[in-house]
Amino acid sequence: MTDHHAGAPVPEQSGPGAEVAQTLRRVRLTAADYLDELLALVPSGPGVERVPIDEAAGRVLAADVAAAVSNPAFTNAAMDGYAVRAADVTNLPVRLRVVADVPAGSSADPRIGAGECVRIMTGAPLPTTADTVVPVEDTDGGLAEVEIRAAEAGRHVRHAGEDYPAGQVVAAAGVRITPGVLGAVAAAGATSVTVRRRPVVAVCATGDELVADGAALVRGQLYESNSHVLAAALRRDGAQVVRGGPVPDRPEPLAGWLDEVAPSADLIVVTGGASVGAYDVVRDLLTARAGGVFRQVLVQPGKPQGWAHWAGTPVIALPGNPLSASLCYEFFVRPVVERLLQVAGPAEFTAVAAADWGCPPGRMQLLPVRLGSGPDGRLLARPVHTRGSASHLTSALGGADAIGIVPAEVDRVVAGDLLRVRLFG
Amino acid sequence: MTDHHAGAPVPEQSGPGAEVAQTLRRVRLTAADYLDELLALVPSGPGVERVPIDEAAGRVLAADVAAAVSNPAFTNAAMDGYAVRAADVTNLPVRLRVVADVPAGSSADPRIGAGECVRIMTGAPLPTTADTVVPVEDTDGGLAEVEIRAAEAGRHVRHAGEDYPAGQVVAAAGVRITPGVLGAVAAAGATSVTVRRRPVVAVCATGDELVADGAALVRGQLYESNSHVLAAALRRDGAQVVRGGPVPDRPEPLAGWLDEVAPSADLIVVTGGASVGAYDVVRDLLTARAGGVFRQVLVQPGKPQGWAHWAGTPVIALPGNPLSASLCYEFFVRPVVERLLQVAGPAEFTAVAAADWGCPPGRMQLLPVRLGSGPDGRLLARPVHTRGSASHLTSALGGADAIGIVPAEVDRVVAGDLLRVRLFG
Repeated sequence: MTDHHAGAPVPEQSGPGAEVAQTLRRVRLTAADYLDELLALVPSGPGVERVPIDEAAGRVLAADVAAAVSNPAFTNAAMDGYAVRAADVTNLPVRLRVVADVPAGSSADPRIGAGECVRIMTGAPLPTTADTVVPVEDTDGGLAEVEIRAAEAGRHVRHAGEDYPAGQVVAAAGVRITPGVLGAVAAAGATSVTVRRRPVVAVCATGDELVADGAALVRGQLYESNSHVLAAALRRDGAQVVRGGPVPDRPEPLAGWLDEVAPSADLIVVTGGASVGAYDVVRDLLTARAGGVFRQVLVQPGKPQGWAHWAGTPVIALPGNPLSASLCYEFFVRPVVERLLQVAGPAEFTAVAAADWGCPPGRMQLLPVRLGSGPDGRLLARPVHTRGSASHLTSALGGADAIGIVPAEVDRVVAGDLLRVRLFG
Repeated sequence: MTDHHAGAPVPEQSGPGAEVAQTLRRVRLTAADYLDELLALVPSGPGVERVPIDEAAGRVLAADVAAAVSNPAFTNAAMDGYAVRAADVTNLPVRLRVVADVPAGSSADPRIGAGECVRIMTGAPLPTTADTVVPVEDTDGGLAEVEIRAAEAGRHVRHAGEDYPAGQVVAAAGVRITPGVLGAVAAAGATSVTVRRRPVVAVCATGDELVADGAALVRGQLYESNSHVLAAALRRDGAQVVRGGPVPDRPEPLAGWLDEVAPSADLIVVTGGASVGAYDVVRDLLTARAGGVFRQVLVQPGKPQGWAHWAGTPVIALPGNPLSASLCYEFFVRPVVERLLQVAGPAEFTAVAAADWGCPPGRMQLLPVRLGSGPDGRLLARPVHTRGSASHLTSALGGADAIGIVPAEVDRVVAGDLLRVRLFG
C-alpha cells in the first residue's frame, strides 16, 4: 500500500466537466433502441465454410440440408421376428414354414408363399410379399418351422418414406447443430455441412485496478474476471476468442491493443472505462479516435455503454463491473454474435417470479435468476440476489441459469408476477 | 441391389431359440433399476487435473474454490462522482472544495476535512474519512470546487466484504464451470482450478446395414448416424470421445475394435445388436466373452439393452434405432458420464403436456419434446411427434430441446397433464 494521505493531483484537462455530463444526459436510449444500434454494427456475417459432420457439433448451419433418400429408405421390420402374410395369421396359433432369413443389411427379397414366412431382424427390408412382422416373443422362435402365437395384421412394419420423402429439408439454415440436429443430418446421408465461419471476437478488460496473475491485492486493486467470463460466453455462443488485457487506463496501451486485434477480428469487446469518470479511457479514446458513440442506456445494470469502429472493426464498450459486464453481454452482445452467425437467440420463456424485489424507475432491469418448477407446471424464477443494483456481487454470477428481464415501466416485482427469462445455455 | 429372391440360408446354430426368448422374458427391469445397474459400473471417476482458468470453461470443479480476499476487498465508490462526508451535504445545494482525485486502481486515502471532498471514480477506494458518494450527474462536475445539488447520506458506497468474506467458497466441487462460475472464480483470485479429468469414452455403431461415407444406398442399407449423435452428446457432457465404426455384424471386427479402445477408455458405448435377433453380435459377443448382461428394460424406446466389461472397461450396449439410441443415451448413459465427472445432472422441470398421446402399458416412455411458454407462466412441452413407438423418426431428433419422461403406470397423456422434462443443453 502506498501513502494513504496523498491523493493524485486533480488533472486539469481530462475532467468530465459540465459539458460531458450534460451531453450524456441528452443521449439516453432505451435498451431496445441501443440494441438496435449495436445490431446495425454487423450488417453481415463472416462467411461460410464446409466441415465434416464429425466437427460440426455446435456450429450454425449456413445452408439447408436435404435428405439424400426417403426415410426409411425401404419398408422394413420394426422388430426381430418373422415376416408373414396377414392372411396366414388370422387363425392362431399357426405353424409356418421358414423359407429364408433376412438379417439387417441384407438386400434379399425372398418370395413368401401361402403358409410360409421369413425370419427377419429389426431394420431388415420387409420382403415384398409380406405385410406383417410377428415379434419373436410371440412365437416359439423356430428355425425351420415356427409357431405363431399372436399376430396383428400390418403391425411392426415401418413403411418407406413414412418419416420423410427424399429431398426433404431435415435441418434448415440458421439452426445450431445440436447432437439431435447432427443425427438428423447424418441419417439423411450428409457427411459434411456448410456452416457459418466462427466470428473472431477480441475481448479485454481495462482498468489500472485490475490484477490478472493472482498476486496479493493492495488497496484499490481487484482481480480481473471480465475477460474470462466474456471469453467463455463468446465461445459458448460460437465465436473464436482472442483474449487480451488487462489494459491500463491510458490511451496508448489501449490503442496498441486495438491496433493489434482489429485487422483479424469481426468484433471487439472491451469492458470498463465507458462511463463519465475522469479516467474513462475507453470512452475518451474511442470518442476521440474511432467515432465513438457513448450512451446512457435505460437499463440496470449497464447504464454507461458505447460503441465505435477501430480501423473498420466494430467495438462494443461494456461496463466494468463484473455483474454488469456479464448481464450486458447476455442482453446486448450475444445478439450481435448471433447476428454474425445468422442464428436465432437463446430460448426465452415466461416464468413466475418467486420473490419480491425493487426495480429502478424508468430503466429495464436485468438480473440473474435461478429457475425451478412450481407444483402446477409453472416455471419459477428466483433472483440470485434481490439487491437490484448490486453490480459488484460476483458471487451471483455462478448461481444463475438465466437472466430475468423486467421492463422499464415496472418499478416493483411481486412474487407471482410474470417475468421474461432467457436461458444462459 | 443383389438378387431379390435369394434370402440368406437359415443359420443352424445362432438362432435366438426358445431359451433365449424365455431368459430375456425373465430379466425385465424397470428403467430406474437398470440405470442403477449402469451407475454401479463406474464406482469412481478418472481423477483430477489442474488447469488455468482460461481453459476451464465447461469442465467440472473437483475442489471447492475459496476466495483469496473478501469482496469487495475494500470499501469503494459505486459511481463516478465525489466522495463526501454526509454531514457536509445535509443542506443543498452546497459547494465543497475538491482536495484530491482518486481514480480506480489508486491506493490513495486522502483525508477529507469539513467542507471538503474528493473526486472519485467507480470502483476506487472510498477515503476513510468519507461515507457517501455523490454521482457526478448530481453535481456541476467542478474540478477545484464542486456544487453538490443532490445527495443521500451513505449512498453509492460498496462496503468491504458485503458480497462475501475472504475464505468464502465461491464455487463448490461438482459444479460445471459456466461463464458465470468462471467469473466468480476469477474474481476471487484463482488463476487455475482443479477439475475432473475428462473421461475417455469410445463409441461406435454396429450393423451390416450401416453406410458411413454417404455412398448411394442399396436396399437394406441406411446411413450411420448414431456414432455422430453420441459423440456430440458425450462431448457436450464433458467426455473426450474416440469415435469408431461402423462395425459389421461379426464378432471378430467388434472384438478387434473393443481390444483397441478398451485400454485407454473409461467407458465404451456401442449401438445396435443388443436385441434378440439371430445376428445380434453385440449381445452374443459380450455375453460369451465379457460377462455381458442383457435386459428387457421397461422403457420405450429402448427395451433391449445391456452392459459388460471388456478387458475391465465398462461397456454399455444401446439400441440401434437412432431415436432410441439418442433418448437412451440421455436417460441411461449421460448419468454414467456425470457420475464419472462427479457432477449433477441436467436441469429437470415439471412441464404441462401440450398435446395428447398414448404410452406403452407398463413401460416408462421417453420422448423428444419442444418447450414453450403458456400465458400464465406454465412451461409447455409439445412432443415433436406423437407416434410414441416411432423410433425410426430421425427427423424428430433435430426439433427437440428436452426429453419428456412419462412414468410406466401412465398409459395416456392428455393435454394439461404434468410431465417431467429434462433439458438437453
